[in-house]
Amino acid sequence: MTAKKKSPRVLVLHGPNLNLLGTRETDVYGTTTLDSIVARLRVLGDELGVVVDSFQSNSEGDLVSAIQKARDGCQAILINPAAYTHTSIAIRDALLAFPGPIVEVHLSNIHRREEFRRRSLVADVAVGQITGFGPESYVLGLRALASLLGTQ
Amino acid sequence: MTAKKKSPRVLVLHGPNLNLLGTRETDVYGTTTLDSIVARLRVLGDELGVVVDSFQSNSEGDLVSAIQKARDGCQAILINPAAYTHTSIAIRDALLAFPGPIVEVHLSNIHRREEFRRRSLVADVAVGQITGFGPESYVLGLRALASLLGTQ
Amino acid sequence: MTAKKKSPRVLVLHGPNLNLLGTRETDVYGTTTLDSIVARLRVLGDELGVVVDSFQSNSEGDLVSAIQKARDGCQAILINPAAYTHTSIAIRDALLAFPGPIVEVHLSNIHRREEFRRRSLVADVAVGQITGFGPESYVLGLRALASLLGTQ
Amino acid sequence: MTAKKKSPRVLVLHGPNLNLLGTRETDVYGTTTLDSIVARLRVLGDELGVVVDSFQSNSEGDLVSAIQKARDGCQAILINPAAYTHTSIAIRDALLAFPGPIVEVHLSNIHRREEFRRRSLVADVAVGQITGFGPESYVLGLRALASLLGTQ
Amino acid sequence: MTAKKKSPRVLVLHGPNLNLLGTRETDVYGTTTLDSIVARLRVLGDELGVVVDSFQSNSEGDLVSAIQKARDGCQAILINPAAYTHTSIAIRDALLAFPGPIVEVHLSNIHRREEFRRRSLVADVAVGQITGFGPESYVLGLRALASLLGTQ
Amino acid sequence: MTAKKKSPRVLVLHGPNLNLLGTRETDVYGTTTLDSIVARLRVLGDELGVVVDSFQSNSEGDLVSAIQKARDGCQAILINPAAYTHTSIAIRDALLAFPGPIVEVHLSNIHRREEFRRRSLVADVAVGQITGFGPESYVLGLRALASLLGTQ
Amino acid sequence: MTAKKKSPRVLVLHGPNLNLLGTRETDVYGTTTLDSIVARLRVLGDELGVVVDSFQSNSEGDLVSAIQKARDGCQAILINPAAYTHTSIAIRDALLAFPGPIVEVHLSNIHRREEFRRRSLVADVAVGQITGFGPESYVLGLRALASLLGTQ
Amino acid sequence: MTAKKKSPRVLVLHGPNLNLLGTRETDVYGTTTLDSIVARLRVLGDELGVVVDSFQSNSEGDLVSAIQKARDGCQAILINPAAYTHTSIAIRDALLAFPGPIVEVHLSNIHRREEFRRRSLVADVAVGQITGFGPESYVLGLRALASLLGTQ
Amino acid sequence: MTAKKKSPRVLVLHGPNLNLLGTRETDVYGTTTLDSIVARLRVLGDELGVVVDSFQSNSEGDLVSAIQKARDGCQAILINPAAYTHTSIAIRDALLAFPGPIVEVHLSNIHRREEFRRRSLVADVAVGQITGFGPESYVLGLRALASLLGTQ
Amino acid sequence: MTAKKKSPRVLVLHGPNLNLLGTRETDVYGTTTLDSIVARLRVLGDELGVVVDSFQSNSEGDLVSAIQKARDGCQAILINPAAYTHTSIAIRDALLAFPGPIVEVHLSNIHRREEFRRRSLVADVAVGQITGFGPESYVLGLRALASLLGTQ
Amino acid sequence: MTAKKKSPRVLVLHGPNLNLLGTRETDVYGTTTLDSIVARLRVLGDELGVVVDSFQSNSEGDLVSAIQKARDGCQAILINPAAYTHTSIAIRDALLAFPGPIVEVHLSNIHRREEFRRRSLVADVAVGQITGFGPESYVLGLRALASLLGTQ
Amino acid sequence: MTAKKKSPRVLVLHGPNLNLLGTRETDVYGTTTLDSIVARLRVLGDELGVVVDSFQSNSEGDLVSAIQKARDGCQAILINPAAYTHTSIAIRDALLAFPGPIVEVHLSNIHRREEFRRRSLVADVAVGQITGFGPESYVLGLRALASLLGTQ
Repeated sequence: MTAKKKSPRVLVLHGPNLNLLGTRETDVYGTTTLDSIVARLRVLGDELGVVVDSFQSNSEGDLVSAIQKARDGCQAILINPAAYTHTSIAIRDALLAFPGPIVEVHLSNIHRREEFRRRSLVADVAVGQITGFGPESYVLGLRALASLLGTQ
Repeated sequence: MTAKKKSPRVLVLHGPNLNLLGTRETDVYGTTTLDSIVARLRVLGDELGVVVDSFQSNSEGDLVSAIQKARDGCQAILINPAAYTHTSIAIRDALLAFPGPIVEVHLSNIHRREEFRRRSLVADVAVGQITGFGPESYVLGLRALASLLGTQ
Repeated sequence: MTAKKKSPRVLVLHGPNLNLLGTRETDVYGTTTLDSIVARLRVLGDELGVVVDSFQSNSEGDLVSAIQKARDGCQAILINPAAYTHTSIAIRDALLAFPGPIVEVHLSNIHRREEFRRRSLVADVAVGQITGFGPESYVLGLRALASLLGTQ
Repeated sequence: MTAKKKSPRVLVLHGPNLNLLGTRETDVYGTTTLDSIVARLRVLGDELGVVVDSFQSNSEGDLVSAIQKARDGCQAILINPAAYTHTSIAIRDALLAFPGPIVEVHLSNIHRREEFRRRSLVADVAVGQITGFGPESYVLGLRALASLLGTQ
Repeated sequence: MTAKKKSPRVLVLHGPNLNLLGTRETDVYGTTTLDSIVARLRVLGDELGVVVDSFQSNSEGDLVSAIQKARDGCQAILINPAAYTHTSIAIRDALLAFPGPIVEVHLSNIHRREEFRRRSLVADVAVGQITGFGPESYVLGLRALASLLGTQ
Repeated sequence: MTAKKKSPRVLVLHGPNLNLLGTRETDVYGTTTLDSIVARLRVLGDELGVVVDSFQSNSEGDLVSAIQKARDGCQAILINPAAYTHTSIAIRDALLAFPGPIVEVHLSNIHRREEFRRRSLVADVAVGQITGFGPESYVLGLRALASLLGTQ
Repeated sequence: MTAKKKSPRVLVLHGPNLNLLGTRETDVYGTTTLDSIVARLRVLGDELGVVVDSFQSNSEGDLVSAIQKARDGCQAILINPAAYTHTSIAIRDALLAFPGPIVEVHLSNIHRREEFRRRSLVADVAVGQITGFGPESYVLGLRALASLLGTQ
Repeated sequence: MTAKKKSPRVLVLHGPNLNLLGTRETDVYGTTTLDSIVARLRVLGDELGVVVDSFQSNSEGDLVSAIQKARDGCQAILINPAAYTHTSIAIRDALLAFPGPIVEVHLSNIHRREEFRRRSLVADVAVGQITGFGPESYVLGLRALASLLGTQ
Repeated sequence: MTAKKKSPRVLVLHGPNLNLLGTRETDVYGTTTLDSIVARLRVLGDELGVVVDSFQSNSEGDLVSAIQKARDGCQAILINPAAYTHTSIAIRDALLAFPGPIVEVHLSNIHRREEFRRRSLVADVAVGQITGFGPESYVLGLRALASLLGTQ
Repeated sequence: MTAKKKSPRVLVLHGPNLNLLGTRETDVYGTTTLDSIVARLRVLGDELGVVVDSFQSNSEGDLVSAIQKARDGCQAILINPAAYTHTSIAIRDALLAFPGPIVEVHLSNIHRREEFRRRSLVADVAVGQITGFGPESYVLGLRALASLLGTQ
Repeated sequence: MTAKKKSPRVLVLHGPNLNLLGTRETDVYGTTTLDSIVARLRVLGDELGVVVDSFQSNSEGDLVSAIQKARDGCQAILINPAAYTHTSIAIRDALLAFPGPIVEVHLSNIHRREEFRRRSLVADVAVGQITGFGPESYVLGLRALASLLGTQ
Repeated sequence: MTAKKKSPRVLVLHGPNLNLLGTRETDVYGTTTLDSIVARLRVLGDELGVVVDSFQSNSEGDLVSAIQKARDGCQAILINPAAYTHTSIAIRDALLAFPGPIVEVHLSNIHRREEFRRRSLVADVAVGQITGFGPESYVLGLRALASLLGTQ
């Protein structure tokens, strides 16, 4: 890949409490840390021809601002909105203003959990949704974006 | 207007993503920027005898704090809570603690959009609501407040 | 304004029981009569360059017919459907057949009243809605229409 | 048909806004006027051996009264209650008091429109319902009634 | 009763289709006509010291207007809103503006009929409700009003 | 009334907390005691040609048993089930097994109170329901029963 | 009709249990058999200039396949999905893939039956719906299709 | 891959109407045929070390039987239940009896379509769900299974 | 029992996935196979004077057809509709056309499982329902039918 | 059965109004009395090797206490909670504290009656439920318990 | 505490099945008996300056009567209504008639249990609610009452 | 208390707008300030052997982060989530990752306020909930935690 600088840039966004990954509720979320997931995505990004940026926040407003900023410089968003999946219209609105493709991922199978986790305010503004595969959800999501961006 | 210093002060609050106004979803929200709306409101405020303050944030907590601070120095609030209209009890509670009149405005006609945009947690703690007129909603809202404050 | 004859004509429609305004439930609706509101609108209309027609009826059918007739000669409708706001699909259908802009106004804040007053069958066929400012709701509504008609 | 005077009489009732047919929302309702539909029904009535009466009103009360009067002289009712389909228990009650067969027709496919148009307060007091065929709905309805009356 | 002229006046209101009483659905509503009920009420009114006025209409708007007019000259309202019981906020609003006591009556037991007949928009603006006793419902209702007016 | 012994017997049943009448929540239920109501009913019963029995209990099971026993010796039931109105299918079932007419009464207007007081499990197994007239509800109810029993 | 071979072909589809027609629940469905209905449709088809094919199955999958096959050779579908009306998204999807006009018919008035029979998954993908006329529903449906196909 | 015979076997199941893929509703489902998808999966399977079996049916029962048979010889299931996603408890029950991992895929974004397509009866019995990526959904699903089976 | 040939015949129907009985989800359904249940029923049938036929299918349509055929030769049906209990109106309709007594059985206690398993479309067309006793449910069901058929 | 004293003891509980059995609503409940049912159960109990105790009460509290007492001396409960089936969490809680098997029976088919009779608060704390077979429901229930207790 | 006789008296009420405490469902409710809880409350009462009365019943009516009697002699009520929390309007009504402060306690965390345990009919007529701390809930509740009574 | 350093540490968390305590809506929340509550808790903490930390924020994200940090150094959490009680799944998720006991408190009785304040997303992840006692709720909550931590 000779022209790496021109590779599209993907912002990988992580919602609240994902910074605890690998330490909290390991029976539900496994023992992999967020850092190791992002590292794996960077390696895969190299392979697929996309540059991977990553941002985690517990704050809804900061996630909204990060999505807004991604309009400059990023061509796609891979987002695990975590708890905000089900409550944040603000994140939905920010994503609606993002021109590139968006993919929503979840580590756990949200259909097996509390009823209120079944509704995603993001799902219909994303291209698609991948849920239930643990860290592999991110990996599949990045592949999906690479395919949508035509780098693969 | 010779005694401008004594004019009542109105805090105009803008919720998440309104900083993008004029650039995102222009088919829904038009091409006017937030700055030009605020500029127009300041001019109108001079005419109506009210001073216009303005604050925008993507953060629910910052909006709550701004409302709290407005208890010192502001006599009224003109608020477009955007996405938080439908989800923020915290903003509702802050407004409940504000002693002066509150007017809620929306750029788009929320009755033509997703079902979840029809419920406003703010509407019954405001004096009234104006929705659907684009930037003109703010203008009408400021006029309504001026009338309530008796400056006009 | 030299060419007054050519000013656009706005039909102001008042639904059932608004003829009692100023006499019934004055704690909710205030003491201003419908006549004095209309008089104020006519003065404002002169100022804004629109001619104001007014019609009140307790009959759903007569309101439907009035809307139908407005297709000849009126360029806009300012409507306070009162009780029919929540029950009349017939009025909604008549408004759907009206080609000009429509603005819906309410004297009281319908979000503070009975649950069944929260649903408006008119709201999504109007350009926008203004609610809660007493007679001032009409004033703001006429201003909104003048702006939409481009007379101001 | 030598004994035309003794032919059964069918009252064709048209609800609110149907007088605008052919002029309003032509993408939904087509360009045929109500008069031309009735004219076509009269011709078909001759053919089928029934006499066709027609009445349109925007007033719920007048439609109720018309149904009441039909008890003298009419043997069947063909009704397009339009907007009142979904809101009028009064029309339902009047139809319940009518001894002959009733057929309900709709020009548009009510299942493709707003949710509140799906409920008909008339459907279960009629023999049957025909919906979605434009003016042809009336034609099919009259045929159905002729069959029920045994004139065909 | 020497001072009959000064007796309070009660408006007895009958909603749509009650003019058919005694002829329609006699299994549900019995064979007594509206005239004979009113006649019986007048006799009972003489006995109880109240004057009985009566008005029936199939039109929601006319019933609203009748209630409005009753504010001059009538001290109480006895109403059987029939089908409008369940759909008319306009009648509810008119009753809200009536200063004297209101009693709601129904001939049939509305709890044994269609689900939509169970909700009364009038019940909580009336003093009380009497339902299920056929014409006797009116008789009991007039007695209740006489008691409330203190004539008995 | 020479044959008083043969007069039909009416069981007047009072549900839980009605023994407190006149002492609790007097703003809702007034200051009349249950004893004085029953005394008034006995006087009225004499006048109407019915004998009045009375029973109050806080126990659902005892009320069920009382209704069962009324099958021997009582021809009608006048019941104010109070709180059990809304929760007791057992009382409903007992009333279903009672062959004579049943009238349900309530002191307060249940339509003005908590939502859960709007549903009556008894209403559709009674002939009719009288609600909102305070002690007068009982009086009207006894009159209704007398009329149904044909003693008046 | 000289060019009968070129007449459009209509597939008449009958859902589960319709093969029992004339033998089961005759109070609801009448005594006409499916064969006699189809025979009558063929005669009418000759008259209207359309060729009538017919297929009945108790299997959802077979009905889906029949609709798929109709894409070759049939220009329209007349379908009585019977029980599958209310449960089969698969049939809905197959109909969505059919390019010609579709008409839905029902023998009985589905609005008079169990609540779950009121929802049709087919109604909004068909041009229109005819319900309640017994075998005449098919006849009217074929007429409607002939009109849509322009053969009449 | 020298030991291909020992590679795990994945059954790829396609629900009703997917045999039409590439020909129906191409705006929703694209123009790729089912055969080409399966061919692509076989190639990818070779790469990932799994053998791909494929079965499509319009019949719910046949799909149930296919899942039952997969218990012998297949180690995993990749299923696009199409319309049966939302209605088939039978397929859910069959999947519950399958011991290996299951992945659910959808071509279109079911969150952007009719409300009834949002509920999946399969989602919580599968490991995870992938939706919205067109044929790529299958590709990602096979990758997910390969990862779960440990072949990659 | 000398006249065994004349014994009534009972069709025992088993819905989808019951062919797996004894092998799938043994914690819920136990380890008894369907064959051993049927064998036990045949023995019991001999004892009770009824002949037992048995049919299992994963196909809704085939079950419908089996019920239709039972109209010739069978006097009663014992059915465990399994997953179709909750989704099949077609099976309900077929049962409605069966003239003899029907008993519904379930192995597991459907009230302890997913919410959607609580609704049975069959329960109100059967004489009664037996649920929760494992294979014993069938045994009790056959006894119930024998009692209803009067063979015992 | 030589060791009858050691036979397990089953408490048969009957809820409110079952003491009227055979006299009330005989079209729904038949003419068999409770005594004759219990007598039949005792005979069957002898045959099955269980001792039958019986208790009926109209009082929820007494039924709760009876269940509590059954913890000493009874090994199983056969309960027809009648009206309390649908309203008594207290009985549910008492049953939860009972260590032996519980079977719930109903005389009538609760799925054919009022909507509120469909919910059983007992069903998921019992082993199983038998409904609709009249007195035979008890007989089947006792057989089920005998099987669970292993006496048969 | 020299003036113990004048200490306010608190009635501690225990609903159905609480007499089993320490023996039933010990995983949910622990092993402490009701007697030991009451003993602990008496000791704490001495310390806080309140006299503790205690009453347990399985009967709703007896609990209602106990609350009524507490109006004489008790200044406060500490109530664990157990199962009646969710079903008894009668207990609610009795508490409404009690003039002193009321505190509601629960041993288990009702938010972690069945959905129907989440609604308390008592919560809004009590000063406050304490739930989830086992016997400590009573202790905290008594402290809360002592604080409200001003003894501490 | 000689070993104070080893006392367990309790984080007391206060949600949005609680910094206004004592100044806003004093009729609902009283006049005590947050500082005075915390001071009282510190004194009580000394007495109970726990160290009290306190943190207030209007920001959901900051509260999430504070809970995360409490995993290092704090053994328990006492939380009044205020408005976020009803909307924040993020706070719920953070609490789920906290290993020690959590107690939820509210100043006002949330069961007497708006319907949307009745749902707590925190209640079932806390040990228990205390609501309605004003500042005393905190005091009781700290006592509950001390008991759970075994310091008392």
